[in-house]
Amino acid sequence: MKKEILFSPGPTNVPSEILLEGAKRTIHHRTKAFTAMLEKAEKGLAGAFDTKGDVYILTSSGSGGMETAVVNFLSRNDNVLILNTGAFGRRWANIVKAYGIMADVLEYPWGESFKLRDVEAKLKDKKYKAVLCQLGETSTGTVNDIKALGGIMPKDTLLIVDAVSSLMTEEFHMDKWNVDICVSGSQKGLMMPPGLAFIALRKGLDAELGKGDLPSFYFSLVHAKASREKGQTPWTPAVNLIYQLNKALEMLKEEGLDNVIQRHKDMASIARKTVVEMGLELFSSAPSNGITAVKVPEGMDGSKLIEHICEKYGVRFANGQREYKGKIIRIAHMGYVTVPDILMALNCLWLGLKKYGFKARPGAIITALETAAGLDNK
Amino acid sequence: MKKEILFSPGPTNVPSEILLEGAKRTIHHRTKAFTAMLEKAEKGLAGAFDTKGDVYILTSSGSGGMETAVVNFLSRNDNVLILNTGAFGRRWANIVKAYGIMADVLEYPWGESFKLRDVEAKLKDKKYKAVLCQLGETSTGTVNDIKALGGIMPKDTLLIVDAVSSLMTEEFHMDKWNVDICVSGSQKGLMMPPGLAFIALRKGLDAELGKGDLPSFYFSLVHAKASREKGQTPWTPAVNLIYQLNKALEMLKEEGLDNVIQRHKDMASIARKTVVEMGLELFSSAPSNGITAVKVPEGMDGSKLIEHICEKYGVRFANGQREYKGKIIRIAHMGYVTVPDILMALNCLWLGLKKYGFKARPGAIITALETAAGLDNK
Repeated sequence: MKKEILFSPGPTNVPSEILLEGAKRTIHHRTKAFTAMLEKAEKGLAGAFDTKGDVYILTSSGSGGMETAVVNFLSRNDNVLILNTGAFGRRWANIVKAYGIMADVLEYPWGESFKLRDVEAKLKDKKYKAVLCQLGETSTGTVNDIKALGGIMPKDTLLIVDAVSSLMTEEFHMDKWNVDICVSGSQKGLMMPPGLAFIALRKGLDAELGKGDLPSFYFSLVHAKASREKGQTPWTPAVNLIYQLNKALEMLKEEGLDNVIQRHKDMASIARKTVVEMGLELFSSAPSNGITAVKVPEGMDGSKLIEHICEKYGVRFANGQREYKGKIIRIAHMGYVTVPDILMALNCLWLGLKKYGFKARPGAIITALETAAGLDNK
Repeated sequence: MKKEILFSPGPTNVPSEILLEGAKRTIHHRTKAFTAMLEKAEKGLAGAFDTKGDVYILTSSGSGGMETAVVNFLSRNDNVLILNTGAFGRRWANIVKAYGIMADVLEYPWGESFKLRDVEAKLKDKKYKAVLCQLGETSTGTVNDIKALGGIMPKDTLLIVDAVSSLMTEEFHMDKWNVDICVSGSQKGLMMPPGLAFIALRKGLDAELGKGDLPSFYFSLVHAKASREKGQTPWTPAVNLIYQLNKALEMLKEEGLDNVIQRHKDMASIARKTVVEMGLELFSSAPSNGITAVKVPEGMDGSKLIEHICEKYGVRFANGQREYKGKIIRIAHMGYVTVPDILMALNCLWLGLKKYGFKARPGAIITALETAAGLDNK
């Protein structure tokens, strides 16, 4: 018997309660019953984003949500500033490029977060329509300081944040932090199957809809807003995923949103202390609550290590992306993951490292336990 | 107790086997296990479209699939011809308009199919990059003659067909009928929950990808093709819906694709004969296998009738769209619907009409039974 458990940054593990919720009878989407469930989900999500603005639910991946932010609020001749701290920063750059928007890119080495002083200098230098960035950069396990960034944003520049993999894992207060547009997805901190994206707009920002000149249809929030006013979506939505979304939001609310963030902080803290104690090096200089990325020991093939641990123990870590394939291991502890799970993951990492000849200190596992015990004492 | 059964043209009823299939553990999408299920689904869909070309699976509604056809194969200064026979013909017009494409529209009264001679005249008159049309027009319950249209298509004009609600309900042979691009969705004849769209390309047409000048990202098949070659999707796919897709394809294959079409023909035949016998008038002059649209008797509020039948009996018919709201009833018999189901639906329609003072002939129900008995004798 091998039980597979995901320590990958999306898809993440889905509780059976949520899986089964999706097996409820598909109802028609032009009905009062559907409107009730849609509005409940929109309200629950607004709580997760911590905004008084509207949240729109899209049937797409998180990248579709990112494109939605671009096509609805930017125009062809706009200048934007992209804070590129990894693969998903690069994704912002690719999306705006596809639409012919002028972008200045502040590019950082993978594993680093953006530097506020660089952004400040850029913002002084030129007037941008928007700054696009990540709360958590999934490819590197790095968290960016959106609160500080929100504090230096000029009045007429939109702050557009990708929180696809970091909503419900990092502290985030959209309104308080001066964020205009924030995007997230279902298969990360919300512990759901993939298939839904979410886009939250600062209160009043919907008045800007339809003013840009970029073409769009499926992702046009002009259509979505008109339907929203009737409690509907413009196109047939993924009804069964919205059942699951409500169940997920209910479970998160029951745990308490602050407790959910604290749980992620705790798991990250255990993971970080333990891997360092093993003799590994953290990859990120600003590690996130949802992902702990570690450097693969010199001379070891990280891809093989990851595959071995998954084959042998069912514990699925994520590989590095692009030039970091085989060079880093990303241990995602997001969504439906608890302290016992991260302990199990670290035990299996230790076993895998040993198998491949790296002598991880056995005391590291004691460190994991003691860190966990310390949490209990709080 | 009230059991709700959908006679609406999407979402349609989902068998519990398929609902439960979606409750399987969500797996990671960058794995061999996922590649195997994706490739199985792509192959099964190619059978449904009857094409040797490639089918791409998108996480979106059918409208997202329609937009995918437009943004990947058309360019800004192209002239296209739209055969508009209802709300979804209008959708083609709205999508191409959003992208600044020049469109000539042959618009027909709702309930009529396009006339081949009109199309022929247009094609003689001007060179079009593409003709866009519907196999089945969902808003009116009308089927268009795509086979004949395919026969008159000029060599360099793309035939782009929306079969969102008609794949697996109408006879369709993409390659044999000379169709270049065909779009469908999960929540209709494929008896799945909504959330997936499919786009099939004539063999070799993928060589044209990337040549157009319309902006796109999420729906770009350039990205999708590159990923497809690795057995993947470019963005995180709705993994659990793909489990369900394979289950649905398996069930359809077990029934036999020709038998599936015949079942839809049979149900449509029972529905049409019975409603006429009741004293109602068919709305469409070319009624489809998947939807029987009937005119609401003079002076009756069709919206109230539909709501009453749903409230009282759980049988959900669809209302007319736009100017036909309250004026027509659409009885969808597509997907997971059988002869006994359509008999039940017609019985409930009879009861509803009686309640609202329309004296439907009781003999109509005998007609339904005799038509069904006639099918048994074949």
